Amino acid sequence: MATGSSSPTGHHYVDIHPVLLHDDHDGRRSKLGKQPNSPVKFRGGDRKPRINRQVSLGTGVAVFGMEKERRDGNGGGNKREGPRSLSRSGKSLGGLGVGGDAVSRKGDFSIFRTKSTINKQNSMLPLRKESELIPQETEVGDDRINQSVPAGRYFAALRGPELDQVRDYEDILLPKDEVWPFLLRFPIGCFGICLGLGSQAILWGALASSPAMSFLHVSPVINLSLWLLALAMLVSVTVTYACKCAFYFEAVRREYFHPVRVNFFFAPWIACMFLAIGAPRRFSPKQLHPAVWCALVAPVFLLELKIYGQWFSGGKRRLCKVGNPSSHLSVVGNFVGAILAAKVGWEEAGKFLWAVGLAHYLVVFVTLYQRLPTSEALPKELHPVYSMFIATPSAASIAWYTIYGSFDAVARSFYFIALFLYISLVVRINFFRGFKFSVAWWSYTFPMTTASLATIKYAEEVPCFLSKGLALSLSLMSSTMVSVLFVSTLLHAFLWKSLFPNDLAIAITKKKTNTGAKSSQGQEKKVVKKTYDIKRWAKQTPLSLVSSITKSSSAEKDSDGK
Amino acid sequence: MATGSSSPTGHHYVDIHPVLLHDDHDGRRSKLGKQPNSPVKFRGGDRKPRINRQVSLGTGVAVFGMEKERRDGNGGGNKREGPRSLSRSGKSLGGLGVGGDAVSRKGDFSIFRTKSTINKQNSMLPLRKESELIPQETEVGDDRINQSVPAGRYFAALRGPELDQVRDYEDILLPKDEVWPFLLRFPIGCFGICLGLGSQAILWGALASSPAMSFLHVSPVINLSLWLLALAMLVSVTVTYACKCAFYFEAVRREYFHPVRVNFFFAPWIACMFLAIGAPRRFSPKQLHPAVWCALVAPVFLLELKIYGQWFSGGKRRLCKVGNPSSHLSVVGNFVGAILAAKVGWEEAGKFLWAVGLAHYLVVFVTLYQRLPTSEALPKELHPVYSMFIATPSAASIAWYTIYGSFDAVARSFYFIALFLYISLVVRINFFRGFKFSVAWWSYTFPMTTASLATIKYAEEVPCFLSKGLALSLSLMSSTMVSVLFVSTLLHAFLWKSLFPNDLAIAITKKKTNTGAKSSQGQEKKVVKKTYDIKRWAKQTPLSLVSSITKSSSAEKDSDGK
Amino acid sequence: MATGSSSPTGHHYVDIHPVLLHDDHDGRRSKLGKQPNSPVKFRGGDRKPRINRQVSLGTGVAVFGMEKERRDGNGGGNKREGPRSLSRSGKSLGGLGVGGDAVSRKGDFSIFRTKSTINKQNSMLPLRKESELIPQETEVGDDRINQSVPAGRYFAALRGPELDQVRDYEDILLPKDEVWPFLLRFPIGCFGICLGLGSQAILWGALASSPAMSFLHVSPVINLSLWLLALAMLVSVTVTYACKCAFYFEAVRREYFHPVRVNFFFAPWIACMFLAIGAPRRFSPKQLHPAVWCALVAPVFLLELKIYGQWFSGGKRRLCKVGNPSSHLSVVGNFVGAILAAKVGWEEAGKFLWAVGLAHYLVVFVTLYQRLPTSEALPKELHPVYSMFIATPSAASIAWYTIYGSFDAVARSFYFIALFLYISLVVRINFFRGFKFSVAWWSYTFPMTTASLATIKYAEEVPCFLSKGLALSLSLMSSTMVSVLFVSTLLHAFLWKSLFPNDLAIAITKKKTNTGAKSSQGQEKKVVKKTYDIKRWAKQTPLSLVSSITKSSSAEKDSDGK
Repeated sequence: MATGSSSPTGHHYVDIHPVLLHDDHDGRRSKLGKQPNSPVKFRGGDRKPRINRQVSLGTGVAVFGMEKERRDGNGGGNKREGPRSLSRSGKSLGGLGVGGDAVSRKGDFSIFRTKSTINKQNSMLPLRKESELIPQETEVGDDRINQSVPAGRYFAALRGPELDQVRDYEDILLPKDEVWPFLLRFPIGCFGICLGLGSQAILWGALASSPAMSFLHVSPVINLSLWLLALAMLVSVTVTYACKCAFYFEAVRREYFHPVRVNFFFAPWIACMFLAIGAPRRFSPKQLHPAVWCALVAPVFLLELKIYGQWFSGGKRRLCKVGNPSSHLSVVGNFVGAILAAKVGWEEAGKFLWAVGLAHYLVVFVTLYQRLPTSEALPKELHPVYSMFIATPSAASIAWYTIYGSFDAVARSFYFIALFLYISLVVRINFFRGFKFSVAWWSYTFPMTTASLATIKYAEEVPCFLSKGLALSLSLMSSTMVSVLFVSTLLHAFLWKSLFPNDLAIAITKKKTNTGAKSSQGQEKKVVKKTYDIKRWAKQTPLSLVSSITKSSSAEKDSDGK
Repeated sequence: MATGSSSPTGHHYVDIHPVLLHDDHDGRRSKLGKQPNSPVKFRGGDRKPRINRQVSLGTGVAVFGMEKERRDGNGGGNKREGPRSLSRSGKSLGGLGVGGDAVSRKGDFSIFRTKSTINKQNSMLPLRKESELIPQETEVGDDRINQSVPAGRYFAALRGPELDQVRDYEDILLPKDEVWPFLLRFPIGCFGICLGLGSQAILWGALASSPAMSFLHVSPVINLSLWLLALAMLVSVTVTYACKCAFYFEAVRREYFHPVRVNFFFAPWIACMFLAIGAPRRFSPKQLHPAVWCALVAPVFLLELKIYGQWFSGGKRRLCKVGNPSSHLSVVGNFVGAILAAKVGWEEAGKFLWAVGLAHYLVVFVTLYQRLPTSEALPKELHPVYSMFIATPSAASIAWYTIYGSFDAVARSFYFIALFLYISLVVRINFFRGFKFSVAWWSYTFPMTTASLATIKYAEEVPCFLSKGLALSLSLMSSTMVSVLFVSTLLHAFLWKSLFPNDLAIAITKKKTNTGAKSSQGQEKKVVKKTYDIKRWAKQTPLSLVSSITKSSSAEKDSDGK
Repeated sequence: MATGSSSPTGHHYVDIHPVLLHDDHDGRRSKLGKQPNSPVKFRGGDRKPRINRQVSLGTGVAVFGMEKERRDGNGGGNKREGPRSLSRSGKSLGGLGVGGDAVSRKGDFSIFRTKSTINKQNSMLPLRKESELIPQETEVGDDRINQSVPAGRYFAALRGPELDQVRDYEDILLPKDEVWPFLLRFPIGCFGICLGLGSQAILWGALASSPAMSFLHVSPVINLSLWLLALAMLVSVTVTYACKCAFYFEAVRREYFHPVRVNFFFAPWIACMFLAIGAPRRFSPKQLHPAVWCALVAPVFLLELKIYGQWFSGGKRRLCKVGNPSSHLSVVGNFVGAILAAKVGWEEAGKFLWAVGLAHYLVVFVTLYQRLPTSEALPKELHPVYSMFIATPSAASIAWYTIYGSFDAVARSFYFIALFLYISLVVRINFFRGFKFSVAWWSYTFPMTTASLATIKYAEEVPCFLSKGLALSLSLMSSTMVSVLFVSTLLHAFLWKSLFPNDLAIAITKKKTNTGAKSSQGQEKKVVKKTYDIKRWAKQTPLSLVSSITKSSSAEKDSDGK
């Protein structure tokens, strides 16, 4: 039964049917009727089987149970009773598919497969009879997956500042205690590594070339090696993620609809821009070709039109709901793009991007600072993600300087705002401890690097002991941070093999499956009260016992009718 | 009785009194006492008549009924019982006035009449006895009208992005199935036509004179003819609306309290400014006289003090509640005024207006972008009204250029923000389809024109193929839009005669009259539950069967009557 | 019993024990057990004593009453019944401490004493047995005090635009009808006097020295005398408040956690800066030493890190909750600090402060203008506190001018925004009447003075009749205002002796003590309704009278059990 909600492909039925038939071939199967064949319909509210059970049990207790079932939301009811006898594995998937053999286990992940792949697989099925059922099945299943998970679901089912942990009462579509395929565990946040390394390459380039920092005598070789490392990382991450897109497009879709992760879709392009900006002199011509800018800014711009449009035109993804510190990532692209525009000689395009960035930075800044209670994605406590706050004003400052050619009041104001926010976070350093390392942390290093870069520019403009010292110490801090993360990542990747845990956030169910949420709790209370009422009645007037039961059932009906 | 809430003038009583007297001259009239003479008092919560009824019926049923009546809100109770026997027309007006003769029908609209007019009319009444009653009546009635409709009512009773459609469950004060007097159907939004034409005149003037667009060889005659057309339109709209002010001042008041329409009160003055700015050279001196600026900016400034004060000092019209895209109209006046200030040579005044505009633009922009859930006026979906978003930054850009004399970073940033928002809306063009044409659409053309103007300025500053092409295409788009609207307007006006439908938005009742809203639904549920309880009881205690049935049925009736 | 919530020190028990023992030494004392020794535990929800009473009374009525008590919140229940027999004074303190002798009365205020003082006092207690109990007691008590009052409590318990009035249903920790020790009645708002006088000194200095105002021939003596007066006032207020810090540190803590008062903690430093900026020429060297700047800005900066961090990192003190017009005080410090930075020759530091101020001004301005419904501190109506809106843009304008050396577009924009807000408030002058004078009013004068100063700068830049006239009239207005306040203050201080009323705002209890809040009212209503239902039933079925009563009581239990 429960597989109805987890396995839309024909693959499963090879396993499911026997299980069901063996379990209660004669008795329940006949009652449950077409359930296994119509998972979506069932989920949509097919009440037939339940009514049948009501008849067969025929007691007030059953009525009460029914009541609860119905209230549990779609598909929740059967998960509770049905699998009790069926699921032997006790896994979060709740049932059959998991309990089966290796084939079925592999099939579980296919719900996140790219559609075309599934169809191809299906066509290779040997069992003629099953494969006849498949096209219909697959379509239904795919439709279910293709409907994007609504924004509210992510907030309801996930928690943590990166919305990467599943709430306790939530079920997920994939088995929690197995290691999923590597590609499914490879999050978009990995591009953060490229952001971190790319910005470091720029930083060391600036340290080597900036007149203000010439007293350090930094060799340009560091820049070169970091740049090559960043390039290699970008290529490998891109290839891996491209594979994910190719094979598990549904998982990518789910990352795209994730309110925090969506902002990381800007990361690949920003990382590319970082590489283009920080390219060592021996590789890059005097001036980059504008085509580079076009190629890198186009996807950012299109994504912005989409994301900002969602904020702006309302709906469930309006800014006051989805706004969170990682939204800065979707703004910072403008400023990085503006810097690149200046590098390719298109100042006007840079000014355009800068203005767009400014407008949205303003909105995001004010919204995040206000911490509206409607913003469901804002973490309760401070977290590395807050470092994003530093990135945007730093980038805005550098961009202004690069486009307009002077570190004037505007650039300075943005820089000082970044500096203040930096200080504001540093003094709260204690709050940043105690968080589990994740790949996304890399994204939180590039703001530090950007702030260091802005400080170097400032030190060029105002060359004094304090500014140079600040530039040096900030650069060291960011480099240290990147080094620490690099080592951590290596340790997690190769020693502890824990760099890519199961990516639970993408496997949440589309609808709530149990009674954890408040609303249903409220309803439950009512029921408890009602049953209590019935008992009261029973005690008081023994004669009316029967009638009261009848009544209570009609009352139940009533409350349903609501 | 119901007329108490719809006809405050003596006119009605010519019809009402006989009806009431014939109906229950001896019985109820004596009990109800002064009810017909004091509709407002009754509505305000005079409970005497109800208490009388309680006494006369003298049963628990009555008490229960009373209880409900009281809960139904003011005035709801009598509407239920009184008109049942009286209203013969069944019109939304719900009663007597409509069911009467032509005189009474004409009288219906008089609730929106200017007070003085009503008094004059009343003084001409032949019936001495009635006219003795009138002064008191009229005053009471006028007081009722003079109390402005609360802001919340508009949101509760109306819907649509322009808040121009009445919700299904709402009653309105005027008959829905009749064509109302022309002046009552003439909305303030008609000044949008002047905005559209006036800005077009400026655009074609700029196309003719701008060095960047000289390759088009646009004749200044287009400017002239458009300007004359705009002038003619402004004069005729102004005269018509002045008539509305004179004869139906109460309707104007209601438009003023309408959360969307109030912003259109800026339109006449902005339209005048457009004409002053876009005046063809042969009409206008080298430099306009500052008096022009003073005359046009004064009302805008006073209105701003009022409107911004409402946002700022809280209450029901605070910005987070009433903020909607048309709020941009109340900000754009500052920038247009700043442009005009530069034209008359008062740069400092222009800078003042620009700063005021900037501060409020910032607030409005952030507020609208956040789409706070408290904002009741924001349309769920995109709509032409969203084009307003383009108007303000475009105007700010032009204004900065005009005042400070250079298209520098500030002007450019504003221009680019406008451009981005323009693109952002254009790519969502599909969302703009499927809306019923209304006169207000005209107001949505002037942002396009303003953006075109800003682009022409930009093309002057950065003369390249792209900027000139953009200027040309945007100009063509806006001109096409205006032409399409012009033809539509003519068709609606003269062919389909549907340009001015009944302006339902101004005729909403001041208080909710029926159970459509949620809160009362909740009450209904309670009632249902109560009757249910009673039934249960009835079964159990056979002795009280009859009484409980009586009660429950009366409860049912009650809940039906709602 | 009630002392449990008001007297954490051992001092009390000297008085309390006898009272308790004399009152019902044998009966209740044995039942109540350890209550007097565990005030905090009791408050935390120790239900034992109540259950005991239930047993001892043993009737349904008692159950009902008990039940209600429990619902009333913590500590409310015992206040109602316990003190009925104990409290003889009927004071708001509700009990024992107040009813005692002079020693106990003095002891009441010690809950706001600095911890060390209390311990010292305790150590001097003669009674050995009691003093053995003290250390534990004191710790518990101090912990209770040391836990800061949660932000929500201030909003729940206080009202008025300055959150200085206690809501009717709230109890306070100190006796309302006594005059408290002077230091407890000396609010942080007194530094507003220094702000007002200090800014006046600067204003008269500017009037004397500005070339634009030279036609007035103002003598620098006025500046000198005002400055000396301001200095004297600052010294005396500082000394007094330092005493408060020393002796009643807990009261200072409570002012610090007060959502409005916390902003006034910026006032002492801003007042000092005013004195430094406005120092007469004969006292001040050409250029102040940077150490002055460091000493005065450091506390402001640290406080900002704290306050802005609270806004930003969420929790109960997020901006959208605590934002109120006096938040401007926490922003204006940046701009005043920037001015001072320019005076000491540290332009870069000034630019830093200016940028920080800008970012937060933006956020505060937008937030306050939106008037989010979540903002609990915003007054419903206009109030002198709104003049704060003028202070920040004026100061920003002057600061920009001082740092960057020219009254350019930025300075002018800020100045004009301030001017518009000024006009906007002046036309609403009627709203400002009818408020009780308080010392905090002084803080509302310095915005007017700052606006005058900005106008003088503007008049220097644009010397014309209008600007000079404006500067003159604004200066006169602000001076008049300060004079009026000065006289009022003197009258209140020396004639009416009402300058420092009991500072109720700091004496609120940490938790709600009775049923005033809505939620519990709702519950109460339900109960009333239920009893009503029961009565109805009772009439109808006389046979089931007893059982229905039993039932109703159990039903009550039920609804409580929820």
